[in-house]
Amino acid sequence: MKTRLISLALAGLFAAGGASAQSFQKPEDAIKYRKAAFTVLVAHFGPLGAMANGRMPFDAAAAARHGDAIAMVSTLPWAGFGPGTDKGDTRAKAEIWTEQAKFNEGAEKMRAEVAKLAAAAKTGNLDNLKAAFGPAAASCKACHDNYRRD
Amino acid sequence: MKTRLISLALAGLFAAGGASAQSFQKPEDAIKYRKAAFTVLVAHFGPLGAMANGRMPFDAAAAARHGDAIAMVSTLPWAGFGPGTDKGDTRAKAEIWTEQAKFNEGAEKMRAEVAKLAAAAKTGNLDNLKAAFGPAAASCKACHDNYRRD
Repeated sequence: MKTRLISLALAGLFAAGGASAQSFQKPEDAIKYRKAAFTVLVAHFGPLGAMANGRMPFDAAAAARHGDAIAMVSTLPWAGFGPGTDKGDTRAKAEIWTEQAKFNEGAEKMRAEVAKLAAAAKTGNLDNLKAAFGPAAASCKACHDNYRRD
Repeated sequence: MKTRLISLALAGLFAAGGASAQSFQKPEDAIKYRKAAFTVLVAHFGPLGAMANGRMPFDAAAAARHGDAIAMVSTLPWAGFGPGTDKGDTRAKAEIWTEQAKFNEGAEKMRAEVAKLAAAAKTGNLDNLKAAFGPAAASCKACHDNYRRD
């Protein structure tokens, strides 16, 4: 029953976030998937941060491509947090599944801030990128602090 | 000089394919990135195949979401095949870097077939999905056969 409630809650999250409700054959497939999605996300988020912070020259075309990537990929990993995926090769804390509403709220916030960053990255204006980067990075960090083991 | 030529060739691939020319700090970061991108791609490609082959009921909304994912993610992994990424935790064969033109051609073919599959997946018509799945799967397999160790 509890599992079913969690399934329904997650189904709601996916629907709300527009992410794909994947059907993974094994929990470890879901864990591998969500980690891979975060790996790809970070690889495109990083250069935007480097441009925003002056560690890399601003390249409008590259920023736009990274923006396209983070806009899509930020919607994906949530489908990998289904029931039974709390154990295994993961640093995810149990609170993800016991504080579902709070976790979902953090995920929504991240998607919203990343969407703003993606839009800013596509304006070709470094000041827009700088303004949007901080809130997006903070939204990532909030969940890492609360829901990821060191 | 050879490295520079390969860099230019890869830069051309990225530009042609619209993928992001990432700047990875270490070759292992690039390898991790490309593997992650393929992991995400396969996770969305799989359900489309299951629907096309009747192993999963056709779900038009889910197919459309998987289509969105593969359309974007199929453009990404190529940026992770830069110079120096032939060694490490990878099954990539050396031929990727010695047969650059042929590898690029296979990558272009894959992106084109996956784009067609993505479009078909978004039509809401199972017959379109069935028609597009085979050529897309074949384009994946061609590179696996030629360029990936078992």
